[in-house]
Amino acid sequence: MGSIPIVSTTVESTAVLLISCTDKPGIVAAVATWIASVGGNIVHAEQHTDLSDSMFFQRVEFTHTSSTTLATLTAGFQAVASNWGMTFTLNASPWKPRTAILCSKHLHCVADLLSRTTYGDLGLDIAAVVSNHADAAPVATSFGLPYYHVPVGEGAKGRAEQEDTLSTLLDSLNVELVVLARYMLVMPPKVVAPWTGRMINIHHSFLPAFIGANPYRQAHDRGVKVIGATAHYVSDVLDEGPIIAQDVARVTHRDDVAELTRTGRDLETVVLARAIRAHVEHRVLTFGNRTIVFG
Amino acid sequence: MGSIPIVSTTVESTAVLLISCTDKPGIVAAVATWIASVGGNIVHAEQHTDLSDSMFFQRVEFTHTSSTTLATLTAGFQAVASNWGMTFTLNASPWKPRTAILCSKHLHCVADLLSRTTYGDLGLDIAAVVSNHADAAPVATSFGLPYYHVPVGEGAKGRAEQEDTLSTLLDSLNVELVVLARYMLVMPPKVVAPWTGRMINIHHSFLPAFIGANPYRQAHDRGVKVIGATAHYVSDVLDEGPIIAQDVARVTHRDDVAELTRTGRDLETVVLARAIRAHVEHRVLTFGNRTIVFG
Amino acid sequence: MGSIPIVSTTVESTAVLLISCTDKPGIVAAVATWIASVGGNIVHAEQHTDLSDSMFFQRVEFTHTSSTTLATLTAGFQAVASNWGMTFTLNASPWKPRTAILCSKHLHCVADLLSRTTYGDLGLDIAAVVSNHADAAPVATSFGLPYYHVPVGEGAKGRAEQEDTLSTLLDSLNVELVVLARYMLVMPPKVVAPWTGRMINIHHSFLPAFIGANPYRQAHDRGVKVIGATAHYVSDVLDEGPIIAQDVARVTHRDDVAELTRTGRDLETVVLARAIRAHVEHRVLTFGNRTIVFG
Amino acid sequence: MGSIPIVSTTVESTAVLLISCTDKPGIVAAVATWIASVGGNIVHAEQHTDLSDSMFFQRVEFTHTSSTTLATLTAGFQAVASNWGMTFTLNASPWKPRTAILCSKHLHCVADLLSRTTYGDLGLDIAAVVSNHADAAPVATSFGLPYYHVPVGEGAKGRAEQEDTLSTLLDSLNVELVVLARYMLVMPPKVVAPWTGRMINIHHSFLPAFIGANPYRQAHDRGVKVIGATAHYVSDVLDEGPIIAQDVARVTHRDDVAELTRTGRDLETVVLARAIRAHVEHRVLTFGNRTIVFG
Repeated sequence: MGSIPIVSTTVESTAVLLISCTDKPGIVAAVATWIASVGGNIVHAEQHTDLSDSMFFQRVEFTHTSSTTLATLTAGFQAVASNWGMTFTLNASPWKPRTAILCSKHLHCVADLLSRTTYGDLGLDIAAVVSNHADAAPVATSFGLPYYHVPVGEGAKGRAEQEDTLSTLLDSLNVELVVLARYMLVMPPKVVAPWTGRMINIHHSFLPAFIGANPYRQAHDRGVKVIGATAHYVSDVLDEGPIIAQDVARVTHRDDVAELTRTGRDLETVVLARAIRAHVEHRVLTFGNRTIVFG
Repeated sequence: MGSIPIVSTTVESTAVLLISCTDKPGIVAAVATWIASVGGNIVHAEQHTDLSDSMFFQRVEFTHTSSTTLATLTAGFQAVASNWGMTFTLNASPWKPRTAILCSKHLHCVADLLSRTTYGDLGLDIAAVVSNHADAAPVATSFGLPYYHVPVGEGAKGRAEQEDTLSTLLDSLNVELVVLARYMLVMPPKVVAPWTGRMINIHHSFLPAFIGANPYRQAHDRGVKVIGATAHYVSDVLDEGPIIAQDVARVTHRDDVAELTRTGRDLETVVLARAIRAHVEHRVLTFGNRTIVFG
Repeated sequence: MGSIPIVSTTVESTAVLLISCTDKPGIVAAVATWIASVGGNIVHAEQHTDLSDSMFFQRVEFTHTSSTTLATLTAGFQAVASNWGMTFTLNASPWKPRTAILCSKHLHCVADLLSRTTYGDLGLDIAAVVSNHADAAPVATSFGLPYYHVPVGEGAKGRAEQEDTLSTLLDSLNVELVVLARYMLVMPPKVVAPWTGRMINIHHSFLPAFIGANPYRQAHDRGVKVIGATAHYVSDVLDEGPIIAQDVARVTHRDDVAELTRTGRDLETVVLARAIRAHVEHRVLTFGNRTIVFG
Repeated sequence: MGSIPIVSTTVESTAVLLISCTDKPGIVAAVATWIASVGGNIVHAEQHTDLSDSMFFQRVEFTHTSSTTLATLTAGFQAVASNWGMTFTLNASPWKPRTAILCSKHLHCVADLLSRTTYGDLGLDIAAVVSNHADAAPVATSFGLPYYHVPVGEGAKGRAEQEDTLSTLLDSLNVELVVLARYMLVMPPKVVAPWTGRMINIHHSFLPAFIGANPYRQAHDRGVKVIGATAHYVSDVLDEGPIIAQDVARVTHRDDVAELTRTGRDLETVVLARAIRAHVEHRVLTFGNRTIVFG
């Protein structure tokens, strides 16, 4: 009577292990053996061997008793990782990262992301909406979110000051993820560098086609029959970072630039959400300029 | 000086003519000649001849001087229509129909539609959100829209009363379009009959596959490799009305019912919006249980 | 001098292990450990846990020294399989199964399959083309393949005799795979039963929509905006077997039955080839009426 | 009695009129009136107005009594065309153009095109298969077609001689259409110039991405999640001609260059056939570097 029920010791948590290393025989066994040794049960596992580069990548989702912390598990796996020369992260699942969303004048992506959080499609803890324009303020407000307007002043000086303000703001927001939801200013390396692998951009074309400004205009002028959208991690080089997700839509000669833009909006919102979800679910590993996105 | 500038007489409006009739030689010429006779200029025209049924369908978008009203044009075209045995409508463009949106507990479609109106993707004049549940109230409120909660009481009597209340409400809202944005109650013919051709439903399957309840569960159990969503005009028979838009997504064995549901949400929102847009732009003609959707 | 070079012992072969069993902790480790124990190196591995049914499925592709035969490996793995209650097959890769192709009057699938074998897209060892009609004879002949014409005689008796002749022929051809490449006669259970899991059919619709005859006519009359094709293992019930591959194409009101049929041909050929390839590469496991198709 | 039946005068032929001109009110009426004036009946008509360029394009398919020749109709329409400043062609339908198919070592496109002609998917009158390699000879022979091997000799001189030989051969074949079905040599302007609008190439990427050599390698190295194929009219500039058809397929990190190549083959064959069919059915108009492809 009054005793603590034993069932409390069997409460389970889920963790996701992401591994990269040079391919060698025995890795899968080593990882699986370690998980079994800590009483874990593999729920999903997917691996990928890149034969041309002799690289091995694995995502393992496993349950463990909640009394064992992630820190403990991480420390424990360190020995395996050292033996096999692995780079790894061990992550909690589900994860609800604190996130800043940046946008400019086109509001479909930011509106869509906020909307998705309301009906549980995306598990983001949105810290703020940030923009170089005032246009998105009502959307942010209607969802009860802080809005930071960081406009660009005149000339190169104005631009540099805006970049500094933005950098400082992103730091101060204490976020884990930055989403460029049609933020239309190119950011210099010093702004993006701290966010490597944690800043996702949506580009409104099928990269590497139509890099840069006005991709729908470019697509129209080239007379393509398919348009696309690309979500990628931001790197130093414009529109060149590792691609996480892409999708396309068929178009015809009847579609002028306005119609391409309209069709493209649905691509952009869906592709950006898909990339964010993959990131949040710890499904993405990067290798050079490519990604492995586990299914 | 001070005279009214002549340019005022050249202000132009756009109208859309939708025609159905038995196919005969000379129809296109007759319509084009009439438009030229009223000083109109054809901007877009598309026609379709259904050879097996010998039917002719046409959508003509033309500009006309704003001083000529739609009513005048309609009266004028009546003579052509009578000569050729045409059914036709002559519509203003753009059109922003007063609309009621119905939903139940799944909020992605209603949230998406409201979001689209904020960034100009869909030109709807939303009169109200209506639901048999209370769940969507916060979404409607955050967009500044009236919310009507029409719950179902106990038993057959409760259900019948709800249907009557709903019918009366739709009448009183004075709307031109009713959108069933995942409204999960089957409505009897007497409720839907007044809205023939003006009530659009989204069904979360690739119709005619998986009619009725739990289509994602059905899809999972059948082991399909593609799922879909279908937007259609509501008719007397469940999920049998004329299809306006459909789209599909590839899935795999890894997708359980929850994941199919999640993937399907993006299909549902996009397909429903696409169907509404086609309707609002006067691009849809129905013929029997089929639609002609001009591009 | 004259000694046998040591390199000869390192000639490697590839094998594919397909496993199904009730899910338990430790399976992945057990399999990987066994593979390491026989000197194998995992090249690709993919697993799937069906949480609702608590089932575990795995495909492991591994290299092994050619001096160890498949029979030896199979015998060796039997102990692991017994311990864990696994159903498994261990298969050589690449595999070039002796195959019979059946068709009727529509020749696009058979022509496409024969064409694919000529340019190395599909590794089939085609034993014969078999048909209830004479139409495909020239195609088979131009590819240098035997052609068996098994026509249907009059009445029920004629049909029954044809089925017996066909059964006997398939037995005598000594094939490992039967492909129904638009073979339009329904075969009774006694004919198909011996080929469970080894007979693949292409159905010219998005199953379960439009089961049975004239699916493009059915699709047209329903007014769908997307058509599809489905490749599946043949079971006792018409068009109800486990689906291996499906694909779809957008269509419009402009597409009459003839155009749907034409568009559908490209779907059918591609989907059938994709399913055969998955089968030949040992990527398909069946579970109940569903398939797991490893990527 | 014994008189020639009157029905003989009502045998009907089909013609396709393709029109380009500056947009003006009244064009559609003028064309339709002319067709009615020659006793024609419009079966299909589609028009496109490019608002930004103020251009009008139309495809009209109409039946006429076979006793009226195309030459007579063309002469008759010339007056309408002059009045409105139209460029036009008036074409017989169906049309079965005499065609040369060029290829190199990859045989899937040529094998697919030959296969399609056997089952009536493409109405080509194939005059010959031409290649810089000997690989495709057996395929051509099995379909009973002449094969011309035009190899490249050493150095710039060898290349120039091959181009001359090829030019002369194409002339002598008296063809109306040249299809580059994975012909991998870049041809200089002097070779392609005579074939403007009559030479169709398949490029194994989603143009304008991955122009030039090894697009699947380029796609792999960029880490794209979608690959494509593009069929276009050949122009002076490599891979820059007007695009007729494009399609894409989703790929993942699991797809190495070999797998991308394999997946791409199905795209290439289908896209090339689709483009050829559009051309043969007189559905394609070019305007600058873009195409209008009527549905």
